[in-house]
Amino acid sequence: MAKVAKKAAKKAPAKSPAKASPKSSSKKIKRVYFFGAGKAEGKAEQKLLLGGKGANLADMTLAGLPVPPGFTITTETCRDYNDLKQKMPAGLLEEVKDHLARTEKASSKKFGDPKNPLLLAVRSGAAISMPGMMDTVLNVGLNDVVVEGLAQLTNNARFAYDCYRRLINMFGDTVMGVPHEEFEHALSEVKASVGAAADTDLRTADLKLVVEKYKAIYKKGTGEDFPQDGLKQLALSIEAVFKSWMGDRAIAYRRINDVRGLSGTAVNVQTMVFGNMGDDSATGVAFTRNPSTGEDRFYGEFLVNAQGEDVVAGIRTPLDCDTEMGKWSKKSWKELLVVKDKLEARYKDVQDFEFTIERGKLYMLQTRAGKRNTKAAVKIAADMVKEKLIDEKTAILRVDPASLDQLLHPMFDPKAKRNVIAKGLPASPGAAVGKLAFTADEAHERAHNGEKVILLRKETSPEDVQGMHSAAGILTSTGGMTSHAAVVARGWGKTCVVGAGALVIDERSKTLRIQGSDKVYGPDSVVSIDGSTGEVIEGSLPMVDPEMTGPFAQIMKWADKYRTITVRTNADSPADANKAREFGAEGIGLCRTEHMFFEGGRIKHMREMILATDVDARKAALAKLLPYQRDDFVGIFKAMNGLPVTIRLLDPPLHEFLPHAEEDQAELARDTGKTLAEVKARVSQLHEANPMLGHRGDRLAVTYPEILEMQVRAIIEAACIVKKEKVKVLPEIMIPLAGTKKELDYLKTYTVETANAVMKEQGVKVDWMYGTMIEVPRAALTADEIAHTAEFFSFGTNDLTQMTFGYSRDDVNSFLPDYLAKDILEKDPFQSLDQTGVGKLVKMAVDAGRKTKKGLKCGICGEHGGDPKSVEFCVGVGLDYVSCSPFRVPIARLAAAHAAIKASKK
Amino acid sequence: MAKVAKKAAKKAPAKSPAKASPKSSSKKIKRVYFFGAGKAEGKAEQKLLLGGKGANLADMTLAGLPVPPGFTITTETCRDYNDLKQKMPAGLLEEVKDHLARTEKASSKKFGDPKNPLLLAVRSGAAISMPGMMDTVLNVGLNDVVVEGLAQLTNNARFAYDCYRRLINMFGDTVMGVPHEEFEHALSEVKASVGAAADTDLRTADLKLVVEKYKAIYKKGTGEDFPQDGLKQLALSIEAVFKSWMGDRAIAYRRINDVRGLSGTAVNVQTMVFGNMGDDSATGVAFTRNPSTGEDRFYGEFLVNAQGEDVVAGIRTPLDCDTEMGKWSKKSWKELLVVKDKLEARYKDVQDFEFTIERGKLYMLQTRAGKRNTKAAVKIAADMVKEKLIDEKTAILRVDPASLDQLLHPMFDPKAKRNVIAKGLPASPGAAVGKLAFTADEAHERAHNGEKVILLRKETSPEDVQGMHSAAGILTSTGGMTSHAAVVARGWGKTCVVGAGALVIDERSKTLRIQGSDKVYGPDSVVSIDGSTGEVIEGSLPMVDPEMTGPFAQIMKWADKYRTITVRTNADSPADANKAREFGAEGIGLCRTEHMFFEGGRIKHMREMILATDVDARKAALAKLLPYQRDDFVGIFKAMNGLPVTIRLLDPPLHEFLPHAEEDQAELARDTGKTLAEVKARVSQLHEANPMLGHRGDRLAVTYPEILEMQVRAIIEAACIVKKEKVKVLPEIMIPLAGTKKELDYLKTYTVETANAVMKEQGVKVDWMYGTMIEVPRAALTADEIAHTAEFFSFGTNDLTQMTFGYSRDDVNSFLPDYLAKDILEKDPFQSLDQTGVGKLVKMAVDAGRKTKKGLKCGICGEHGGDPKSVEFCVGVGLDYVSCSPFRVPIARLAAAHAAIKASKK
Repeated sequence: MAKVAKKAAKKAPAKSPAKASPKSSSKKIKRVYFFGAGKAEGKAEQKLLLGGKGANLADMTLAGLPVPPGFTITTETCRDYNDLKQKMPAGLLEEVKDHLARTEKASSKKFGDPKNPLLLAVRSGAAISMPGMMDTVLNVGLNDVVVEGLAQLTNNARFAYDCYRRLINMFGDTVMGVPHEEFEHALSEVKASVGAAADTDLRTADLKLVVEKYKAIYKKGTGEDFPQDGLKQLALSIEAVFKSWMGDRAIAYRRINDVRGLSGTAVNVQTMVFGNMGDDSATGVAFTRNPSTGEDRFYGEFLVNAQGEDVVAGIRTPLDCDTEMGKWSKKSWKELLVVKDKLEARYKDVQDFEFTIERGKLYMLQTRAGKRNTKAAVKIAADMVKEKLIDEKTAILRVDPASLDQLLHPMFDPKAKRNVIAKGLPASPGAAVGKLAFTADEAHERAHNGEKVILLRKETSPEDVQGMHSAAGILTSTGGMTSHAAVVARGWGKTCVVGAGALVIDERSKTLRIQGSDKVYGPDSVVSIDGSTGEVIEGSLPMVDPEMTGPFAQIMKWADKYRTITVRTNADSPADANKAREFGAEGIGLCRTEHMFFEGGRIKHMREMILATDVDARKAALAKLLPYQRDDFVGIFKAMNGLPVTIRLLDPPLHEFLPHAEEDQAELARDTGKTLAEVKARVSQLHEANPMLGHRGDRLAVTYPEILEMQVRAIIEAACIVKKEKVKVLPEIMIPLAGTKKELDYLKTYTVETANAVMKEQGVKVDWMYGTMIEVPRAALTADEIAHTAEFFSFGTNDLTQMTFGYSRDDVNSFLPDYLAKDILEKDPFQSLDQTGVGKLVKMAVDAGRKTKKGLKCGICGEHGGDPKSVEFCVGVGLDYVSCSPFRVPIARLAAAHAAIKASKK
Repeated sequence: MAKVAKKAAKKAPAKSPAKASPKSSSKKIKRVYFFGAGKAEGKAEQKLLLGGKGANLADMTLAGLPVPPGFTITTETCRDYNDLKQKMPAGLLEEVKDHLARTEKASSKKFGDPKNPLLLAVRSGAAISMPGMMDTVLNVGLNDVVVEGLAQLTNNARFAYDCYRRLINMFGDTVMGVPHEEFEHALSEVKASVGAAADTDLRTADLKLVVEKYKAIYKKGTGEDFPQDGLKQLALSIEAVFKSWMGDRAIAYRRINDVRGLSGTAVNVQTMVFGNMGDDSATGVAFTRNPSTGEDRFYGEFLVNAQGEDVVAGIRTPLDCDTEMGKWSKKSWKELLVVKDKLEARYKDVQDFEFTIERGKLYMLQTRAGKRNTKAAVKIAADMVKEKLIDEKTAILRVDPASLDQLLHPMFDPKAKRNVIAKGLPASPGAAVGKLAFTADEAHERAHNGEKVILLRKETSPEDVQGMHSAAGILTSTGGMTSHAAVVARGWGKTCVVGAGALVIDERSKTLRIQGSDKVYGPDSVVSIDGSTGEVIEGSLPMVDPEMTGPFAQIMKWADKYRTITVRTNADSPADANKAREFGAEGIGLCRTEHMFFEGGRIKHMREMILATDVDARKAALAKLLPYQRDDFVGIFKAMNGLPVTIRLLDPPLHEFLPHAEEDQAELARDTGKTLAEVKARVSQLHEANPMLGHRGDRLAVTYPEILEMQVRAIIEAACIVKKEKVKVLPEIMIPLAGTKKELDYLKTYTVETANAVMKEQGVKVDWMYGTMIEVPRAALTADEIAHTAEFFSFGTNDLTQMTFGYSRDDVNSFLPDYLAKDILEKDPFQSLDQTGVGKLVKMAVDAGRKTKKGLKCGICGEHGGDPKSVEFCVGVGLDYVSCSPFRVPIARLAAAHAAIKASKK
């Protein structure tokens, strides 16, 4: 390799993201942060370093909440561990031991001491919550001796051995990779042999047998005895958490959820408390408000005599905190209600927290901002402003613009007859219709091939996330509102129904039966699921539009108050225009006229025009199209009374309008008095190797100015007609695909002459503008020249992205998935604007255009106009408006408010 | 129209090219410049204002050469005339009359005075010569009375009436638009009625009859009598010249010859002198040196007793100045030789001049730099340096780089047997082969459809230029070395043979016969014409390469001395590489590897690779291709010993390698053990809507890194092999179509690993580089990032132009001709780099790339690398090299020298 290369290679490490090398740093890095007994070394703000859970454990401790003592190992340590090819950084174990000693002191227990044993929970906790993605090991510190001590101390040998068998199972599975199924199988065998229906039916002797069997499984799987040294258990558990950060599941989760820029996960090592110490013990997960509806009521579930993972795994059906807990223990219930209020007052947001009640004493294990669906997010944000907990700007920022999509899309028609075949819990609202997919892989594959599927599972697990993401909706037969399926689906805003116990699912034969019915459903059966009622309905249910009132309207009102950019819509018909106005559109940013040539009889005239061999014949055909087009514009102008309407002249290549099947060509030949050979010849003449870069856009108008004249005439005639009816009309004529000033000059002459002629005929004066799409890179590069002729710019970022990247949108799927999978591209540039490349062109063009023409109106009409990140970019470069599809208008309004608020904070 | 538009419209005039409005200027503009009697108001430097002819008439007058007195009306007046919708600017006629009076004084004659009449020639003359494109009127001032006076004064009534009939003809045709054919027809009638063979056989009475007939034709054509008022004749003639500037012919000429930025033509009004006053009078056109060979010998033609247009029109065959004039008049000959030397001493260049000898007295009518073909230009430039007339830099600038093309392309093989069917004058050297086209329109149309044609005409006229331009060569049966066909063809460097008198051409039946032969040739007959010998040969003659010695080598040596940029070549084979080295290439800038997959048996392995369904099968097929590719590189590296070789990895989409005919697909299926359905499925899977923007370039390598690995292995293995043989090898591995830094990073890992592995295996260390094409706009826009990974940039301006304009090169012909015809584009951007748009990207990328990596090697490998204007641009933005096809290497070398010399003068 040449010298330059070598130099570059040598420099490379210095250029990689700044980080302290674990080897080279001379200053000792603090890797472990203690919390307990009202004191904590960490702070709430240190989420990046301590993870969300670690920072909140520290903060809850400082707030005086009852947190079992323990310590947090930093996320940077995780990064260093993985950088060191999965070796523990020097000194870490010593630091852990020191903090273990502090934990012993705070808990008044001793690790490994059978008389008063300290047991530990080892949990992961990244800065951003990744539910179920990484590993947890509980009851660390138990061994053959300690278990006996625990039995004596608690006077509950059954409990002690239940803990021990759980440790061997979790440690074996999570840390050492022994298949979980083997443990499950052994447990089932013992249960069967003693006739136990539930785990709780097992007695001490049975559990001792389970422990023995587990140890044998462990030895068979690892070649070693289960470690009796608690410190070894602890060290290996910590390593397992570090490793899980780089596991396939976690990497996939981060990619799907666009989680970037984190060092790793923190590890929280905490004194075990036990919800399974008897019927005076319990464990639960709760939200300070209902995360599904936003209602301000305590919302949670608990299980008596259970450990935390029993709740999350959805194996037993839990009880409702609000309605059931008081019956079980009034004291605990009241304590929890106090804690709930403290949490909201402290964190000014809905909290999702975990608790354990050990022999009547409440412990807080975790708190974090509660994931909620959009409907809830909107209601909670609006309510909290009313409650003066937060201000309007904070409320706006609490609602993710992209998530509004959930609210804006149709719901099931309430009037439609429902053939409800089962009912479950309404885990994530919305409406979804699809065919049944029986595994996550199947769901992913079929969805990828364009099918709408409902993923049907007994329960879901982190391995299923890809298939869950691909499915239109998720339906499970077990699990509660905080089961894996429910939590994940709510986070995505995906429709989900869980715990529909009547479903009998056979994954192998791919069949679904309903208890009490003979009917069998298979992969081709269509069901509808209603995430707001939990209903499972046979067949495809019709949908209706959602209402845009209440808290939603309130949040949008605030958004409009703070945003600094106009939001228009892309609409080609009066119906779309009306729909968009309802959604708050302030004009049409893109009215495509080509669709107007397809409807009904129009296509015949269009084809006649295309087949014409001279100007006169072409003009004659165009004259027949004129009235249709004029009437379309009349309708659109009336719908947008008082708002600007940007009309793009004919854009697609002419061959798109000609038939390609021979019988259709023959019919066309008969209709137009041509021979079939002539029609075929024209079709073949219009064929192009790369139609995207061919004879389309304003190139058609340059070749056939009469097409432009007809369209301009239709626009201005329509404008004159509605103006006479007192409609306020603001047409903006937009030339597509221009790349040079001269073509805009050339076409402007025809446009101005036609418009003047029409206005003279009609005796009406209409204000109109002449502008251009900026969608060819050259137009952006020469925007200073183009702005002399164009009165406005509208960035057509779809084509601009195609040409700037050299990616044909029609063909990109042959390589784009590889580019995303190999992390060469962070995102599909057709979904979210590429700010580095395409964005640079946009910025250059805006700046250059306005240098030529001060205050030049600039907007965007590519599909990026409805993507929140892209909207933020548009605000940043100073566009006057974004334009997007009607359904995305509220998203753009909210995104624009986010951008303005964030910018004002900078 | 909205307000912004109106403002812009109002501003527009102020923005148009600065010019003095003819109405608004208060200061009087001088529009007319006198010359005569040793004094002149104009200067040689005022070519833009006075036109080439006007400036030189002034200068020759000042130099004491015998120039008939007169005056020049400025080019700005022509512009004002046309801006005023073809009305004479106020005051112009008065200024003309003043200068007419000065002319009368200088010539001692009086306009309109029968006793001593001043007759005038009215000629056009733009700043750049446009031979035959605009109008001339001679003998202005004659009328029924003055003609009689002229007859008496000259004692030559025949001459006087010959002048008069010429005036009526020219004025009627040129000024008033009466068809020339009607005059011709009348003349023929009279000649027939009196039995005259030539015009000179007509007697006075016959000419009087011709005059009467011409007057009748004039009246019939215009509805008016022929004007007897000399001033009216003059004013209308001046207007006719102005108008001719905006005529279709002149506009077409300017477009074809890329003449821009001129205001209009000047008008030269000059005292008539007469070469047709008897046998002691003559007129001629001459060059100071031979414009066809460059030989330093007087070179010209004259006709005794004739007017200038007789020579140019090629109606009579003229005599040679050098060999024949002495015989006719020793005095005149010697005078002319003195004038010739004076001209070269004054203008330091070959002059093309017109003269008239009136009754033994020599008059100079015009001089200008002589058009010459490239061979002559090269020799003259080299000779003049030897003669110390000019310096090396001037010599370099005297040779148009683009014109070198003429010298670099093959000539007829001198050893080939020639079936010569006719012989004419060697008017423009070169070799051309084609089918016969009998009209200019036919030639244009057939050439447009891809045929090679020879335009066969009796003589050519300005109406024919488009067809002449399209033809491969031009062949006429009449006319001399300075006939229209000869002059125009030499200017273009197009092969031309004129005056092949044996040719009997029948335009209507489209047949050619040869005198003395029965053979008939038609539109499908192929002939070869040799522009250096004048031979017309039946059939298609084989060609051989030209020699690069003598003056050509001298000029190229000087060019290499002054240029500042390296010239490489695009070559894919050892043969091309060797050819390019002969032409002076200093490396390979683009070695395309895809061609290497097509030859012989290789395509089978390639197809096997494409049809492979897994990595192992793909690797197996690639392993079979490896030895072929390695051997190709061995050959190329040896050919380029000591010079760098840039190798582009596989670029085209895979479908280009698969067969599309069903029988070929069936064969492929048999060969590869697939079913036909499988082959068809793969073909269909690889089909793309826009392959230009599809799965090609480095996107293939991202999807199938094993292809890249094979190619890198072949390159480095070949490099190691030749290095062992003491060949100096400098491979530069170039990634096509990259648009992001990350894809270059991704591929660099594979490249470096493979290269290192090969070098380890071979035990040889090779210096190589890793770089990228910059051909996707995004790559140019993010060049700062890309330069961190790439060690060199090579601008692929073909694709960069496609994507920056959004023009598919394969489809552009559906609209590009309109864009050129409507002057929306000045040039085909695929031929000459668009400096405003594409060039901006290139400049941005060079600057940004070098900001990241100081001294980053940048070159261009698009076809623009061989276009002189583009080369100048490349020098300007600081590229290190240009690369072009072997035949264009000398052009690029010379163009680079031009650019460097011009830059040094700034």
